Amino acid sequence: MTKFNEFPAVEALHELAHTPIDLSKEGNLSPKRLKEMLTKNLNLKLFYGTERVDEKVLKTLFSLAEEAKALEKMTAMQHGEVINKIEGFESENRQVLHTAMRDFFDSQTEEDEAKKAATLAYAEMEKLKSFLDEIEKKEYTDLIQVGIGGSELGPKAIYLALEAFRKEGRRVHFISNVDPDDAAQVLNKVDLNKTLVVIVSKSGTTLETLTNEELIRKKFADEGLSPTNHFLAVTGKGSPMDDPERYRKSFYIWDYVGGRYSVTSMVGCVMLAFALGMDKLLEFLKGASSMDKVALDPNPEKNLPLLGALLGIWNHNFLGYPTVAVIPYSQAMSRFPAHLQQCDMESNGKRIDKEGHTVEFWTGPIIWGEPGTNGQHSFYQLIHQGTITVPVEFVGFAENQYGMDNSFKETTSQEKLLSNLFAQSIALAVGQKSDNPNKNFPGNRPNHVILASKCDPHTIGSLLAYYEHKVAFQGFIWGINSFDQEGVQLGKVLANKIIGQFAKKSQEEDYEKDFPLGAVYIDALKDL
Amino acid sequence: MTKFNEFPAVEALHELAHTPIDLSKEGNLSPKRLKEMLTKNLNLKLFYGTERVDEKVLKTLFSLAEEAKALEKMTAMQHGEVINKIEGFESENRQVLHTAMRDFFDSQTEEDEAKKAATLAYAEMEKLKSFLDEIEKKEYTDLIQVGIGGSELGPKAIYLALEAFRKEGRRVHFISNVDPDDAAQVLNKVDLNKTLVVIVSKSGTTLETLTNEELIRKKFADEGLSPTNHFLAVTGKGSPMDDPERYRKSFYIWDYVGGRYSVTSMVGCVMLAFALGMDKLLEFLKGASSMDKVALDPNPEKNLPLLGALLGIWNHNFLGYPTVAVIPYSQAMSRFPAHLQQCDMESNGKRIDKEGHTVEFWTGPIIWGEPGTNGQHSFYQLIHQGTITVPVEFVGFAENQYGMDNSFKETTSQEKLLSNLFAQSIALAVGQKSDNPNKNFPGNRPNHVILASKCDPHTIGSLLAYYEHKVAFQGFIWGINSFDQEGVQLGKVLANKIIGQFAKKSQEEDYEKDFPLGAVYIDALKDL
Repeated sequence: MTKFNEFPAVEALHELAHTPIDLSKEGNLSPKRLKEMLTKNLNLKLFYGTERVDEKVLKTLFSLAEEAKALEKMTAMQHGEVINKIEGFESENRQVLHTAMRDFFDSQTEEDEAKKAATLAYAEMEKLKSFLDEIEKKEYTDLIQVGIGGSELGPKAIYLALEAFRKEGRRVHFISNVDPDDAAQVLNKVDLNKTLVVIVSKSGTTLETLTNEELIRKKFADEGLSPTNHFLAVTGKGSPMDDPERYRKSFYIWDYVGGRYSVTSMVGCVMLAFALGMDKLLEFLKGASSMDKVALDPNPEKNLPLLGALLGIWNHNFLGYPTVAVIPYSQAMSRFPAHLQQCDMESNGKRIDKEGHTVEFWTGPIIWGEPGTNGQHSFYQLIHQGTITVPVEFVGFAENQYGMDNSFKETTSQEKLLSNLFAQSIALAVGQKSDNPNKNFPGNRPNHVILASKCDPHTIGSLLAYYEHKVAFQGFIWGINSFDQEGVQLGKVLANKIIGQFAKKSQEEDYEKDFPLGAVYIDALKDL
Repeated sequence: MTKFNEFPAVEALHELAHTPIDLSKEGNLSPKRLKEMLTKNLNLKLFYGTERVDEKVLKTLFSLAEEAKALEKMTAMQHGEVINKIEGFESENRQVLHTAMRDFFDSQTEEDEAKKAATLAYAEMEKLKSFLDEIEKKEYTDLIQVGIGGSELGPKAIYLALEAFRKEGRRVHFISNVDPDDAAQVLNKVDLNKTLVVIVSKSGTTLETLTNEELIRKKFADEGLSPTNHFLAVTGKGSPMDDPERYRKSFYIWDYVGGRYSVTSMVGCVMLAFALGMDKLLEFLKGASSMDKVALDPNPEKNLPLLGALLGIWNHNFLGYPTVAVIPYSQAMSRFPAHLQQCDMESNGKRIDKEGHTVEFWTGPIIWGEPGTNGQHSFYQLIHQGTITVPVEFVGFAENQYGMDNSFKETTSQEKLLSNLFAQSIALAVGQKSDNPNKNFPGNRPNHVILASKCDPHTIGSLLAYYEHKVAFQGFIWGINSFDQEGVQLGKVLANKIIGQFAKKSQEEDYEKDFPLGAVYIDALKDL
């Protein structure tokens, strides 16, 4: 396997990075450039004239994709090859088949492995459909999803994005944190008799989730309700949670769907089907599946996630910017950046390549963001005038969701929102010269804009898959394994040691010697 | 004024940064070190043994604080000197007196300017108290705070942090985004007849806020209610919003309190007094005021915000880490990182010093974060094993808020939460060696832990002020003006141009030539 740093395109790009286009120079960011550097696929437009790229940089980035066999790797992933592995070392050795979870529509994958996974996934969809019919008779108003990491972040981001489309009288809540205040907050708000609880854990052993489950089961029992009637499991077949004595129904997920890629599996679907109904859930899945096909498009100007991945690599590895801000100009997408934090940073926050060599270049960036226009009144000061350049990925919509809008001084709120988005994209790129140094804006802050018609189920499905594949493409090009997460293990091991110390302490046993560093913190709790 | 780069301590620190203590080396992070590098003031403990500092580095950092006259500048700020300015150029030329907004308790500042501001602030508190008595008779259940930036982020972060303490039957909502879906979401949830609306804008001209105000007023009028009975203004005296015909009452704020430092002014207090009652509001203010006094402590090991500022500068300017993650192990503090994003990045995301020279070093870092343990299941992979080192600031509490907890396998949820916090602090510092490169953790990820007894009004007040002063100290040491925000102007100007284009478009007038770049985006909305 050729290493990232050894690709001819990488050397060429380092050379080009010495003199990227100066967007702050009068006339360089022209309307013509903006129009030409605009591509469309599905119902998404991507404006990238405000990135510091020119024809030559783009061509070389496309060569990089070819040299790294990005498209072949994406195809292998979608076909069900075992790509989650590190050569020569013990590793997860699994397929990566989140795309099969939604491959129910046009031009389905014919490869056996992927087809098998899609068939299994579809059987769960059928199960889900009959479960929904079953509960139609009883008036369930609330669903609490209990899960952490990918079992919460993605599902919650999507639920909030599509809350405007939920069925009347149905609400969803999330409990994730082992912090007991998190659960208390939610349980105070619902009528348990009309509440379903979905416990999500692939292994059936996630500490935070089981702790919260116990707490909620107790609350049901205290109110004289049978938890088994109200609790559903989303888990691996045969896991400790796959138990009809304790759950009204189990919905299955598989090892080949990672937590951070699991929104379109039962991890997200049970909750979304309850909230939105099957039709809208299917639209959402179809939007995602359509983007899966786009990710196989050999034309890099049409392959949106590949193009996004390459622009990101240019900013990160060649222009040297350590972070990326994702800023949706839509309040509904408020938790989308938090989902992307996991999807991207857990996937690509790696320091070894797929052969176990320590990498000598930057892998995944730090992803952060808040919705606009709010961010403008917060961290944009630094983005415009700070000493660290932050590439920005904007997302916007032509229409709003609720259709409730107000014309004030001749424009609607939605138009004001879009005006701000467009203005920021331009302002960051071109900057402004002034005799007052405090009113000087250096410009050349790279950014791009994704524009869609409306934040609806289909579009949100496409956006979700767009980012999943953007992340995967970057991992493919860097030659790392984007699908494991060994980096979370050490903290777990040490936490269990300290939990053991707390347990001993409650029994008045000696806990210090087990882990003296932990004991220092425990002892410091005394005189607070 | 000596520039940051010219301080003798800066040169010495650059030298020391070549060989910072290796915390991954067996025995270097000892229980003894942890205990010694632990300081307490008020009810807060700060553990910094997991930072890459030793006695020599600390001493040199303390010299840096002296050379930069950090304490004198903090004193000048709290005394009401005009410090918000750039020498030799047009600038805001204002005092910075957020500390006066809560200087109602022990050892009050005697300086005339600060005293005058505190007296004015206290008069507003009295007004607020009688207003609260007045509304006791009518059953108001909900309050909607309409504001953006500092009028939302800080107040919302604090409200969520203290929601556990709110008066029964009272809820607060926030509308900030010009996105009309944001307002629709909230308005669907409340009974307008029992709802107060607080419009917050110092200038009385904030576009987003006025747009949302119009939309909400219309909704009140549609339901046959008089907005004037329900609407309160928090604004500058004499602003367009200071109008008894339109608002039931106006509460005042002043130019010398910046938006991002305004939580303890009427911007936060009206809402918090409604939600928590006057007593708890006063505890919160007292907690903040106590920390203001700590920030004047000449002993840098007791002056928590100064110590925090110096540790941050060490990581940022000398070890070269571009970002900081703030991770509270408390779900209640979920929006605290978003508030800090504004407070820190808008204050210190600057590129000129106070004499107008372009700086040649990094100013403010990128601040981001989510509550733990959730983050562990998300971005911690990158923090542990990524290629970009992220310093972490942890915050934790000995007790939970609701008192609802559950012992599961011999420990409570709160103990599990704390175990995770402590474990992460240690794991990031020491790392782990393994023959499997994928199970290798390099360690030396600098972090510190702030521990308090409980997330209650007094503690949250102290924490709020701790971060305000940490940010201010960093600005003082870098020699920049942390109190203006010229960097948000350019985007506003261009947004208004594009809004003008949308308005012309709606009148079917020619809008292209006014701003051809804006027109490209507007035209792209057509065929989505």
